[in-house]
Amino acid sequence: MAGTDKTRPNLVVGGPVFILVEPQLGENIGMAARAMLNCGLDRLRLVRPRDGWPNDSAVAASADAYAVIDAVEVFDSTEEAVADLGFVLATTARPRDMTVRVLTPRQAVRELVEIRTTGADVGILFGRESKGLRNDDIVLADAIVTAPLNPAFSSLNLAQAVFCLAYEWRLVEDDTPSDELATPKSTRPANKDELIGFFEHLESEFDASGFLRVTEKRPVMVRNLRNLFERAGLTEQEVRTLRGVVASLTRNREKPED
Amino acid sequence: MAGTDKTRPNLVVGGPVFILVEPQLGENIGMAARAMLNCGLDRLRLVRPRDGWPNDSAVAASADAYAVIDAVEVFDSTEEAVADLGFVLATTARPRDMTVRVLTPRQAVRELVEIRTTGADVGILFGRESKGLRNDDIVLADAIVTAPLNPAFSSLNLAQAVFCLAYEWRLVEDDTPSDELATPKSTRPANKDELIGFFEHLESEFDASGFLRVTEKRPVMVRNLRNLFERAGLTEQEVRTLRGVVASLTRNREKPED
Repeated sequence: MAGTDKTRPNLVVGGPVFILVEPQLGENIGMAARAMLNCGLDRLRLVRPRDGWPNDSAVAASADAYAVIDAVEVFDSTEEAVADLGFVLATTARPRDMTVRVLTPRQAVRELVEIRTTGADVGILFGRESKGLRNDDIVLADAIVTAPLNPAFSSLNLAQAVFCLAYEWRLVEDDTPSDELATPKSTRPANKDELIGFFEHLESEFDASGFLRVTEKRPVMVRNLRNLFERAGLTEQEVRTLRGVVASLTRNREKPED
Repeated sequence: MAGTDKTRPNLVVGGPVFILVEPQLGENIGMAARAMLNCGLDRLRLVRPRDGWPNDSAVAASADAYAVIDAVEVFDSTEEAVADLGFVLATTARPRDMTVRVLTPRQAVRELVEIRTTGADVGILFGRESKGLRNDDIVLADAIVTAPLNPAFSSLNLAQAVFCLAYEWRLVEDDTPSDELATPKSTRPANKDELIGFFEHLESEFDASGFLRVTEKRPVMVRNLRNLFERAGLTEQEVRTLRGVVASLTRNREKPED
């Protein structure tokens, strides 16, 4: 998933605010910023970051995600960080002593999108690396988000938790085809005439070499070989290459003995 | 998303092999291992890791994901690392000079699950941090996987790319309710009799205090207040607490003047 096209900025307008409460490692803040920008999000707030702000380790780990890093807002309390938000989610494991709605990340972003359309601003709280969110922070939220992970090993790295929610947000309105054949600009899919021309070329060489000698098996063999090449989704260029291969392999060939 | 229930192991049997080709930083290998185990996956292969194997930084960054770390297999070439696999995906940006199927992560894991049911083993290739996969590695794959990220900032951290695919795999067959009300074991949702008892208690105190004096507005006001409390999905315990609150606020109160 490397590669970046710098010419196509693509920030999701009005995405949720991501709020890291008491983050400990600058590196995690930087990786969170990178993950957000990967998903077109740029509104990051920090509540009492342990090592202060700005933070060199965060910048170093952000992979130049300046659109996020340069706009970071710092707050003294979670209450202040969520004051202007109309709907807030808390990422945490299912609490034992609280009655609260528990959403999957996928459902959570669906609700954020819906509420966003009313004009209300929305945000997501993430706790510190060592202990997650405190109950006093969780009660500021309208619902909690729990990713349905391996229950025997469910503690996500902070930047991974940020990526998880940012990625789900990104995908809510994404319309990228789920399965597509990418073809170099220099060519195009072969048409049937070109394909059949290749098949007939190949089969005539088989006949010449004696490969399809057993005549009752010929139709099945021809069909199976044609099917194999059809399935590959050949380009026009590849068909030409394959005809060159057949021509090369059959050049100066001796005739079969029978 | 902190919190781990050590009593409930939950490895997805026969998940895909994750193959890191020439990973540079031990820390990324460790974070990738953690992300895999978060999602119930434990088969990690490394091709020519830059700093050798075992690697202390990897262990430190893995958050005790020993089920993955201790089972790591190391190979001298990508060919050897994929030799026993029947279907291989390569995570990379869309290539410019190759005709190849491009899948989203979500579609990719659907195909992996389907192929896995035939008994074939499957794997996913991830390139090194600085430059991703080489074309010679990509041609070993049946299709490529490209996450539909911000095209202006699409380069994912290696461990994030691993998490993205592992998370999608995890969710393919997950049946966690997308929206659920979690309630402490010590209580249960209030029944309507308890709710109505509270409403009538509250409304009788309003009448006594003169709050609902304007009789033509009374029905609307009562309905709106009942609606608000209905929406909160109160527990039996909370209804008792609220009745206590009302009793406390109205104790020793003077009668209204009119």
